[in-house]
Amino acid sequence: MDVLRWIDPPDGPALLLLDQTRLPGEETVLVCRDVPAIVAAIKDLAVRGAPLLGIAAGYGVALAAALGEDVAAAARTLAGARPTAVNLARGAERVLRAHEEGRSALSEAHAIAAEEAEASARMATHGLELVPDGGRVLTHCNTGALAAGGDGTALGVVLAAHRAGRLKMLWVDETRPLLQGARLTAYEAARHGMPHTLLPDGAAASLFAAGEVDLVVLGADRIARDGSVANKVGTYSLAVLARHHGVPFVVVAPTSTVDLTARTGADIPIELRDPGEVTTIAGQPTAPLGSPVYNPAFDVTPGELVTAIVTERGVISPVNEGTLAALGDRLR
Amino acid sequence: MDVLRWIDPPDGPALLLLDQTRLPGEETVLVCRDVPAIVAAIKDLAVRGAPLLGIAAGYGVALAAALGEDVAAAARTLAGARPTAVNLARGAERVLRAHEEGRSALSEAHAIAAEEAEASARMATHGLELVPDGGRVLTHCNTGALAAGGDGTALGVVLAAHRAGRLKMLWVDETRPLLQGARLTAYEAARHGMPHTLLPDGAAASLFAAGEVDLVVLGADRIARDGSVANKVGTYSLAVLARHHGVPFVVVAPTSTVDLTARTGADIPIELRDPGEVTTIAGQPTAPLGSPVYNPAFDVTPGELVTAIVTERGVISPVNEGTLAALGDRLR
Repeated sequence: MDVLRWIDPPDGPALLLLDQTRLPGEETVLVCRDVPAIVAAIKDLAVRGAPLLGIAAGYGVALAAALGEDVAAAARTLAGARPTAVNLARGAERVLRAHEEGRSALSEAHAIAAEEAEASARMATHGLELVPDGGRVLTHCNTGALAAGGDGTALGVVLAAHRAGRLKMLWVDETRPLLQGARLTAYEAARHGMPHTLLPDGAAASLFAAGEVDLVVLGADRIARDGSVANKVGTYSLAVLARHHGVPFVVVAPTSTVDLTARTGADIPIELRDPGEVTTIAGQPTAPLGSPVYNPAFDVTPGELVTAIVTERGVISPVNEGTLAALGDRLR
Repeated sequence: MDVLRWIDPPDGPALLLLDQTRLPGEETVLVCRDVPAIVAAIKDLAVRGAPLLGIAAGYGVALAAALGEDVAAAARTLAGARPTAVNLARGAERVLRAHEEGRSALSEAHAIAAEEAEASARMATHGLELVPDGGRVLTHCNTGALAAGGDGTALGVVLAAHRAGRLKMLWVDETRPLLQGARLTAYEAARHGMPHTLLPDGAAASLFAAGEVDLVVLGADRIARDGSVANKVGTYSLAVLARHHGVPFVVVAPTSTVDLTARTGADIPIELRDPGEVTTIAGQPTAPLGSPVYNPAFDVTPGELVTAIVTERGVISPVNEGTLAALGDRLR
């Protein structure tokens, strides 16, 4: 099952999206024939993961172009569907620019997808060097093929380690509230035959205390110029735990995730999501009706707690404004 | 609705237990007419919370005595129903001893309940001194009237702060996997009219980073001689975060929770619970079938990360073997 695919049959183009909200129970494909359908899929997290959002947004703009719609308006709507992952706006803007310059919007969207897939492969190669033999690796949220081009970002590194015979255990945080670890990462890990164990997010700390974690690897939704990393809520907690226990904390993200216009983590907008994601589970209430809720989708980890950032251009360590800038002119 | 009540109508004695697994949706009472019913209620977490488990176990032994059953066997079964909270075994043993010495088992069980209620009141008085004016307090799991005699341990302190006009906000960790924070603490907080906000466990770290937490208060299931605190899984993570951010981390627990026979935290048995608590929610699968799961009910926080322990006999700070021993001869 493809995670995302552009099709163009006689009755008109469409973007096919594997509906990730239904996994692991059902493999359902959303057939998006217009931009609002793609925007809804993004808001509902049917498609998610920073690099994959960039790809989806790019195809969304290409779809608007193919339908003869207002392409600039489509790009604006897509870019604004969710605020934190910079790839979303960047993918939309890049394809819009191609269209405005008279190049093919669809070719540009295909190019983004191809570049992200290649970036995943390169990140896996670079990141593999950081995984020790017999490594017991903790991850959070989902960063595999369901979140990126190719094999994924952090989970792509873990998969490379598994294929190299280095992975002793992948500890999978379930990642409340939307359980992307339980639903998606455990699903990908099982399909690849990786040794893995699922845990409630609150149980990770006792694994650190017991010396059962050699490495933390996870993704990023946006990286600021000073090396601050916005990623799925719960990430910052793991960074503090890793530091307290002397365990390396590694972020794997393509350079398309780096946003030099965000000077620090405080410049990254953090999406606050619906209280119902916390007060109900599978339609059942799990808290008193009307409970006030704090439900941020992301948190920010300062660069000084990040041991290394693995990009397709190489590994940055330590993480700070200078080392990030050294990535070169491809960063914007 | 009483959380726990002994009744003795003409058709025979029974222990009534509010079924906490059904909260907040339903207020259902379990009528336990024999020891196996109480043991099942303990294992299923229909009744939970270290001090309340001590009370329930005491009444369980009293029930065996009233029914003319093997009281020693009943005490053993009750004591072994769950391994971590020392109060469980201690309550059972204490009532068994009374029975064996020819005193009334029921009176002894009533005495435990009365002492725990008084301990809660005293802990609230002592703990109140640690809550600053306008305090924003973070708690984990449930430590209120649903977990203890009287108003509770940590939540009893928070309630006292609320009544004293000092509580600006109670941050409530939902406490996966069984959501005692969402289901029970939010329920108690709402009933008392406390300002409160529910959050996924992984979101607590960003509150620390934003300077929104002045104090962490939570309970304990067993405290070892060196001051190590076993408490609901996720507690240790909060202790590390509190230390990293310079926020006081306070444990509120009656001396009935202190176990001097456990020399260190490593001597405290940690209950591993059913994987299904993590892989299904409200009967719906949330992870691939057969996913391997790590589901410890508790974790251990070393005494050096605990700013203070509030007991009914006063506040211990710093927390170490010497200060714990100074609590006096009531400790066993």
